Amino acid sequence: AETAKRTSMQITHPFSAVTTLEDIRSVSPALERYTTTTLSGDLWKRPNLTPRDRSIVTLAALIARNQTVEIPFHVNLALDNGVKPAEISEIITHLAFYSGWPNAMSAVVVTKEIFSQRKIGIDQLPPALDKLLPLDEAAEARRATAVAENVGPVAPGVVKYTSELLFHDLWLRPALAPRDRSLVTVSALIAGGQVAQIPFHLNRSMDNGLTKDEASEVLAQLPFYAGWPNVMSAVPVVKDVFEKRPN
Amino acid sequence: AETAKRTSMQITHPFSAVTTLEDIRSVSPALERYTTTTLSGDLWKRPNLTPRDRSIVTLAALIARNQTVEIPFHVNLALDNGVKPAEISEIITHLAFYSGWPNAMSAVVVTKEIFSQRKIGIDQLPPALDKLLPLDEAAEARRATAVAENVGPVAPGVVKYTSELLFHDLWLRPALAPRDRSLVTVSALIAGGQVAQIPFHLNRSMDNGLTKDEASEVLAQLPFYAGWPNVMSAVPVVKDVFEKRPN
Amino acid sequence: AETAKRTSMQITHPFSAVTTLEDIRSVSPALERYTTTTLSGDLWKRPNLTPRDRSIVTLAALIARNQTVEIPFHVNLALDNGVKPAEISEIITHLAFYSGWPNAMSAVVVTKEIFSQRKIGIDQLPPALDKLLPLDEAAEARRATAVAENVGPVAPGVVKYTSELLFHDLWLRPALAPRDRSLVTVSALIAGGQVAQIPFHLNRSMDNGLTKDEASEVLAQLPFYAGWPNVMSAVPVVKDVFEKRPN
Repeated sequence: AETAKRTSMQITHPFSAVTTLEDIRSVSPALERYTTTTLSGDLWKRPNLTPRDRSIVTLAALIARNQTVEIPFHVNLALDNGVKPAEISEIITHLAFYSGWPNAMSAVVVTKEIFSQRKIGIDQLPPALDKLLPLDEAAEARRATAVAENVGPVAPGVVKYTSELLFHDLWLRPALAPRDRSLVTVSALIAGGQVAQIPFHLNRSMDNGLTKDEASEVLAQLPFYAGWPNVMSAVPVVKDVFEKRPN
Repeated sequence: AETAKRTSMQITHPFSAVTTLEDIRSVSPALERYTTTTLSGDLWKRPNLTPRDRSIVTLAALIARNQTVEIPFHVNLALDNGVKPAEISEIITHLAFYSGWPNAMSAVVVTKEIFSQRKIGIDQLPPALDKLLPLDEAAEARRATAVAENVGPVAPGVVKYTSELLFHDLWLRPALAPRDRSLVTVSALIAGGQVAQIPFHLNRSMDNGLTKDEASEVLAQLPFYAGWPNVMSAVPVVKDVFEKRPN
Repeated sequence: AETAKRTSMQITHPFSAVTTLEDIRSVSPALERYTTTTLSGDLWKRPNLTPRDRSIVTLAALIARNQTVEIPFHVNLALDNGVKPAEISEIITHLAFYSGWPNAMSAVVVTKEIFSQRKIGIDQLPPALDKLLPLDEAAEARRATAVAENVGPVAPGVVKYTSELLFHDLWLRPALAPRDRSLVTVSALIAGGQVAQIPFHLNRSMDNGLTKDEASEVLAQLPFYAGWPNVMSAVPVVKDVFEKRPN
């Protein structure tokens, strides 16, 4: 079975074509209906999370899951929904660390085309070295102590990079507000099925200003972009965080 | 190291070329041997799971893991193994929910080419709105109660969509038999390393007619298409489900 | 929102173009800085893990995560860092089993181009049937007993293939040293978030000669190529393995 079929049949098409409604219909009229009625006509119009924030959540999920086919569509939609080019740039940079360099590189490959088409030049992007936000010394001391204790005996290199690159540099870059950076991180964790880090980052996101109602809508947005199971696995962890936070 | 090598060297080839045996041999003669001898000559001929079912399991794994390079080959093989175009259409629609829209969109991009090559028109696909199967009211009441209790306090939007879209619509669409829909779901969960949802869906698949022997062969099929570790992580969960079911 | 934007806008570019520093800068000057300063200027020069080993770890992570965009760059870098063509061939073959056939097929598609460009012919690759290394009968008996007990009642097919294909064939192929094969496996497990199999394979890697200092540096390398969360989830498991091993 496997062998006989491996002929030289080839399918040529653009790497990151946008899938049109006509394309979807030619494979599944039902999927076109859900795309039009449920996603476009309902999900993106729900209250408690703005279209801008839904774009950030969705883009984070796509990059975290290396979904290159859909990234161009959602980079364009994000720009239309008011996410600034500088913020998209910073989201990709942030996820280089939280999803890995290759995910960021795949996002670069398609985003550079969109930026070029929309005449978004380097003057609209955050500088390589930016004026950093002030560090919350107390919170950072608590984090550093925990990581030094848990990670230090096993991987001192990870401790060093986590401190220097993430918490004394990346998280303090001003082109993406801490609340939005947290939104990206939590979305990427849920989309990637990485529940272990949700408590720390969901608490941090709420410390950074994300509300419970918004977090609840992040959970409503993500089943469509990361699949139902990843969200269902995140729910008990989110529930536990909600219950333990002071009102 | 990183920098010096990032020249403008480019590799152009079709996005979803079928990898031929000659291609495989040019990188690994051993991998060609395993492909021919083990996969083609042994795995796909094993008893207790038909080639049609193996195609469904494999296609579900590929879409769940967004493996676009191999999807064209396996859509063709599935059609040759007796999976109907309407069923392939419905598998993609089903996985839009269980793996996410971007996975389905990637599958659409390549499947539309196959459908076009094989002259499969919209008349062979399930309608956008289909006559739904009857709902098992008792089972649905149990499910709805559990989800309302566990998910309701955290994400009412997820409760609403799970009920309306999944269990009162998608699962009742007749173009994919409930047993096959369960087979797709269980395969996607195992292939994606999502063990938490296996008990519910494996039990549901067996309620829908999947036998223990078939489930056992799903586990034998998937190491080759989703990697050994995902299957090894699923085994204790499957074992527990088997042991707790009445004979 | 979803619908309106699904025009026929298309983006054409090579499937696996190497992302240049200029490309990165056009989307994120900061990401270019991190790529140059941190990855190239620091990470790859760290002690306790050679550039050759870092290439093996990185390539395993990319293939495990199906990161086709970056594979060409890192296959070239691996060859420059002293990984032999036969070893790259064998890494891909190994990961066909540990990450799945589709991941290996995606790696084949791009690696065959590199091999062709660098005039690496089949004479430099391991033969399909190779003279196998001697089997450690005692260790294999322990492994076989555990798997027969845990997996046998559920999936006899998995038991059979695990024994015949993995431990009496693949692991004994001489073109990749057991220590390197273990390094590939552990890297793929961490990169894929598959913590359950880390204890067995990390112990095996250390039995095969990987040192604690090297394992620690694997953890420092992988956040950049598989994202911080996957490494943070692996750390407690690695810590537990370290603590339980006799000095």
